Amino acid sequence: MARIVQKFGGSSVANAERIFRVAKIITDAYAKGNEMCVVLSAQGDTTDDLIAKAEEINPNASKREMDMLLACGEQMSIALMAMAIEKLGYPVVSLCGWQVGMNTSSTHSFARIKKVACERVKEELDKKRIVLVAGFQGVDKYGDVTTLGRGGSDTTAVAMAIALQADLCQIFTDVDGVYTCDPRVVPEAKKLPEITYNEMLELASLGAQVLNNRSVELAKSYGVQLEVLSSFSGNPGTIVKEVVKNVEKTYIAGVAQDKKIARIALAAMPDVPGVAYKVFSLLAKEKINVDMILQSYGHDECKDIVFTVADKDAARCEEVLNANRDSLKFDHIDINTDVAKVSVVGAGMQGNPGVAAKMFEALYAAHINIHMISTSEIKLSVLIDKEDSERAMRAVHAQFFQ
Amino acid sequence: MARIVQKFGGSSVANAERIFRVAKIITDAYAKGNEMCVVLSAQGDTTDDLIAKAEEINPNASKREMDMLLACGEQMSIALMAMAIEKLGYPVVSLCGWQVGMNTSSTHSFARIKKVACERVKEELDKKRIVLVAGFQGVDKYGDVTTLGRGGSDTTAVAMAIALQADLCQIFTDVDGVYTCDPRVVPEAKKLPEITYNEMLELASLGAQVLNNRSVELAKSYGVQLEVLSSFSGNPGTIVKEVVKNVEKTYIAGVAQDKKIARIALAAMPDVPGVAYKVFSLLAKEKINVDMILQSYGHDECKDIVFTVADKDAARCEEVLNANRDSLKFDHIDINTDVAKVSVVGAGMQGNPGVAAKMFEALYAAHINIHMISTSEIKLSVLIDKEDSERAMRAVHAQFFQ
Repeated sequence: MARIVQKFGGSSVANAERIFRVAKIITDAYAKGNEMCVVLSAQGDTTDDLIAKAEEINPNASKREMDMLLACGEQMSIALMAMAIEKLGYPVVSLCGWQVGMNTSSTHSFARIKKVACERVKEELDKKRIVLVAGFQGVDKYGDVTTLGRGGSDTTAVAMAIALQADLCQIFTDVDGVYTCDPRVVPEAKKLPEITYNEMLELASLGAQVLNNRSVELAKSYGVQLEVLSSFSGNPGTIVKEVVKNVEKTYIAGVAQDKKIARIALAAMPDVPGVAYKVFSLLAKEKINVDMILQSYGHDECKDIVFTVADKDAARCEEVLNANRDSLKFDHIDINTDVAKVSVVGAGMQGNPGVAAKMFEALYAAHINIHMISTSEIKLSVLIDKEDSERAMRAVHAQFFQ
Repeated sequence: MARIVQKFGGSSVANAERIFRVAKIITDAYAKGNEMCVVLSAQGDTTDDLIAKAEEINPNASKREMDMLLACGEQMSIALMAMAIEKLGYPVVSLCGWQVGMNTSSTHSFARIKKVACERVKEELDKKRIVLVAGFQGVDKYGDVTTLGRGGSDTTAVAMAIALQADLCQIFTDVDGVYTCDPRVVPEAKKLPEITYNEMLELASLGAQVLNNRSVELAKSYGVQLEVLSSFSGNPGTIVKEVVKNVEKTYIAGVAQDKKIARIALAAMPDVPGVAYKVFSLLAKEKINVDMILQSYGHDECKDIVFTVADKDAARCEEVLNANRDSLKFDHIDINTDVAKVSVVGAGMQGNPGVAAKMFEALYAAHINIHMISTSEIKLSVLIDKEDSERAMRAVHAQFFQ
């Protein structure tokens, strides 16, 4: 007997048939004698539909009222799932964020969890009930409804697992685990039986959208073991934990791409101290996240600063920089959105100096030009032309996994 | 400056355009310096849509989960209305049942209000905010979401008016007041400027569906003055209160019909004590409401018992009675659903013995046969053939109002 937290995403509960499939997964686990606490997202497109309704009325609605509206999506999900589980003949109770004591900050639409006062959930588990928890939502110290931001249901699940000291936290999605590469691009991609928190964090931030990053960070902080698996296939998924037994001695966990980026080049800036500081503090003030940064060697008392941002931020970025052209003193600005980032991620990279060489070899063999390179302890990324991205993925994946 | 509670029904907030029309009504009253607490129902067909979703999954879902689901309807309404009011530039906050301290019994789907702990609402009013309250819903002592039953938003509004000691409680509907008769049947029907609580209660129970009866009872108990008016016309409505100044000396407030009834006749029962008790205690046990009752004079040691019930209860009623035929010892049972009840209601009837004669005269002149008669202090009802119902309404209305 174990205490299990499960989380099912919106596509897993999109209609009555899928709700019953999920109800079966939950009640099967319950019937084996496990204590079940299950976190649900809003059904399918519910959240988008609610946002559309709100925008019809007021595109600048306050985030507080937006949270009030959106929280209904998850509330409807848990009530409907409870009805399905009742139909299967099992004891169940559904609970909203304020009922499970999901206490958060007051940052509406992006609230942080402060404390889970889960007495009610524990009482219900003691009564042998399956407990359904509305994901994505909480309540602040004023008694107002908050939401955790997109992907927040993953975070709810991990927070519940921590508060309940659960033995396992299973995140059900529409893919059946974490792969060495996107299987739609590289059919040879293999499912990883295990992956470390850090690798998962790097992969998620690189565009492998399996788990919400905040949930992985939270799981890492408290050592909660996650399992990512499919609500459709029934196959075992991928375990996310601190240290992974590396049976096959592969030191790379996966290869990922991110095509939603833009490269910004500030050409011919004065080569004096404080230039980089000026540029990036300006962007930070605008809450624009900067990823790869390259600063050229100075020549002729000039240097170039090149960096990448999310493509949606590119126009705003250009605007801000141009508005400060007088103080930044660059010659011209160049924006390129026809770029992509391909990365290899692996905790084993640290002890294997050959990874970079191996990656560059693969790209060279495929005649792919590299614009920028960036490295971290467990990640190596290159910026290339967007049209080369899939080819690069396949080449790099083949290099490391075949 | 006054403290006003307003309530808008589902059709008044059915779409964005109507939401803005209501937002205008609310903010106009606020702009005049009034404190505004506004109760909203779910939009248009939302509640029915949610019920359909639930029934697809489990037609026998628990009432607790049904309440959890249905409460979303009003929550969405208040959030969207808040966004509209924000757009108009006024300070506003939306609050659910659990946030306004709407404490109820645990009778899910038909909870009774126990106490309104409205500190939060008072604080928000002190901050000069328009407060939007989700109607129809509450929270029980276990912290579970409850609902008050259909029409519960009227009750929420009256309860808020009592708790806030409001100066006025305005119930906005799609009709612009209480009429002497259904204007769709009798075009000459007049809008009443005022009506007493008791008259309103009799009219509502007779099928004039303007105000929910529980809300009128509650208003009566606490002496809360109600105004029934239209969110579409902008005309003054009908005031519901304890004593009405009868300027025109009309002693009848209105004429109403109820076509959703059935007459049940138990023929040739033994004429011994306890027979009526047996019949009606059986029906009470089944929660079947009995309305008009007629017991014939005994003859040949036999008597007949005839009564009316809601037509939806007729089949169940027949079943229960037949199942107890051995102990009830009736000869045969006769069910007639082709009947209607037409009633005149008026607090002034008590001092006017001629009302019955006047009503019978009108029906006789229209050649309408009367099957049963029942009277109360302020009401006189006759049971007639359903096909005669509209004609009877017009004849009786003309007799008293022209």
